[in-house]
Amino acid sequence: MKTCKLALIGFGNVGQGFAQILRDQQETISALGLNCLIVAVSDLHKGSIYQPQGFSPADLLQAVKEGSSLENLPAQARGWSAEETIRQSGADVLVELSYTDLQTGEPATGHVRLALQEGMHVITTNKGPVALHYPALQALAQQKGLKLGIEGTVMSGTPSMQLGGELLAGAGVFKIQGILNGTTNYILSQMETGAPYAEALAGAQQKGYAEADPTGDVEGYDAAGKVVILANVLMGASLTLSQIQREGITRLTPADIQSAQAAGERWKLIASLEKTPAGEILASVRPTRLPQAHPLASVGGATNAITFSTALLGDVTLIGPGAGRLATGYAILSDLLAIYRA
Amino acid sequence: MKTCKLALIGFGNVGQGFAQILRDQQETISALGLNCLIVAVSDLHKGSIYQPQGFSPADLLQAVKEGSSLENLPAQARGWSAEETIRQSGADVLVELSYTDLQTGEPATGHVRLALQEGMHVITTNKGPVALHYPALQALAQQKGLKLGIEGTVMSGTPSMQLGGELLAGAGVFKIQGILNGTTNYILSQMETGAPYAEALAGAQQKGYAEADPTGDVEGYDAAGKVVILANVLMGASLTLSQIQREGITRLTPADIQSAQAAGERWKLIASLEKTPAGEILASVRPTRLPQAHPLASVGGATNAITFSTALLGDVTLIGPGAGRLATGYAILSDLLAIYRA
Repeated sequence: MKTCKLALIGFGNVGQGFAQILRDQQETISALGLNCLIVAVSDLHKGSIYQPQGFSPADLLQAVKEGSSLENLPAQARGWSAEETIRQSGADVLVELSYTDLQTGEPATGHVRLALQEGMHVITTNKGPVALHYPALQALAQQKGLKLGIEGTVMSGTPSMQLGGELLAGAGVFKIQGILNGTTNYILSQMETGAPYAEALAGAQQKGYAEADPTGDVEGYDAAGKVVILANVLMGASLTLSQIQREGITRLTPADIQSAQAAGERWKLIASLEKTPAGEILASVRPTRLPQAHPLASVGGATNAITFSTALLGDVTLIGPGAGRLATGYAILSDLLAIYRA
Repeated sequence: MKTCKLALIGFGNVGQGFAQILRDQQETISALGLNCLIVAVSDLHKGSIYQPQGFSPADLLQAVKEGSSLENLPAQARGWSAEETIRQSGADVLVELSYTDLQTGEPATGHVRLALQEGMHVITTNKGPVALHYPALQALAQQKGLKLGIEGTVMSGTPSMQLGGELLAGAGVFKIQGILNGTTNYILSQMETGAPYAEALAGAQQKGYAEADPTGDVEGYDAAGKVVILANVLMGASLTLSQIQREGITRLTPADIQSAQAAGERWKLIASLEKTPAGEILASVRPTRLPQAHPLASVGGATNAITFSTALLGDVTLIGPGAGRLATGYAILSDLLAIYRA
């Protein structure tokens, strides 16, 4: 049994989902040889606590549920900043879950860099540091002999990054296509039942799939961030967000949807990456009409999917959830298991 | 760079596919940190050779292409039996590719057991030893601190076993459903275009998907063998072939196919495994009508697919090739990379 001490920066939905998994799946995790201890949590709003023998995940969740500050829990230290938590918690793994900023990548990138410098493995589900600074962060991790787990940045806990980066590493991936944004896929699925765009969007907002300002999803920025991650992590590229050709779904009309359906086809917001024979990487996010037989065509609702085109296996497709508290929490566990398996 | 010395027992389609990958993808494999040397090949028909510094994969393939015995190649020793090859080749990994026998599992099981006893890792794409003796062989491997790679026994090189056994290990898999036999899926796809069963079967035989005696495929024995493997490897069961409820596709009529299509559904030969709350494993292979929205419904032709139902992620589906020389050869490379990654 290996014990791993974890420090969590941020304790929102994903952190709570992960704590819920540690609370409810302890038997499964022990059977896999891992004993996870949350020794520190630092959240800007919920408080910051440190306890070297670890907190009970149930206690952490109960405090949040009651709207009580985490700092009311028994703890050896309170009120540490994120930086103090990283430097002083003695954790083996930093779990970086602060808010996503796709413009600057901060403060998450600073946390990731500091943790690696301090000799900790890092797991993050935060697209900011990975979309903006992956090559440098991965080089630092490698230099320090540490792991940087990023499974949750694409398709939440559906193991797309480990599939593409490890299991298909020798298969010669030359093209990747995906439905990487569940919100837009849900909206398009609703439009296929006859709903106009505005009504489908309102439905997505009501279900919690879309935010009040849906721009990030419907204009393709979220998917574009994921394309950058796939390109830089799996294809060794150094793309930036501005290099992705990006078009959202807001200009699709009910007539577009119907005419595709009449032809036995479906509109999907497809994120696409292709390595040309010259080694150039072409990357885009755009609405695409797919024939019904395409493996991504039948992926409906908020589900995500990714197709890796490979030299040795042809096409390999993975379909699974792209969001959700437990699904994203699982990404953290999955990265932890990979770190301690190796 | 790690060097791994390989001994191949059997040099048919899969072994040649693997040699082709070593010949053509050397750059990719080196970049992954592995230097593979085939130090011995032992094939009942093509000859048996040993050379401690390794054979050129191109030379091995050229000899087979010319119909020349492998024993005409420069070698330090010739004519060794499989047992002598295992005992005397000094290989790090045995690649067991002899013929499949789902009744006795021999001679492959004996080769696997001997190699583990001699301290070699083992990779096999042979369903026999895995369907019949996995728990004992895995226990032996574990006791010796060795790895038993079996990716190629289900869905060829599509990494279904590593997905289910490693990446989803903590997700709480409680149900598995799959299209695990490409021949029958091809026949069913053809029947959907109006071909009667006999004509679709003849087409599959012409394309090399079905054998002259198609019983193993069309009566569901091949899929049942894979169900046993999934149950015993991924769910810790100890099932035998006779415990699988098995029904093939031979009784499906064009009228059955049409009536499903009229209802927006499709017939698929579904291999299914489910863990009951009491811990019992229910296992079957049978033709099943799936609604079009089911992730396995749109999997057409000779393609395979598997859906893992999990507690933390819901359904995760993997779609990819289930056969083919290069695809199955890739399973061996994929297992090798996993052995040397760990």
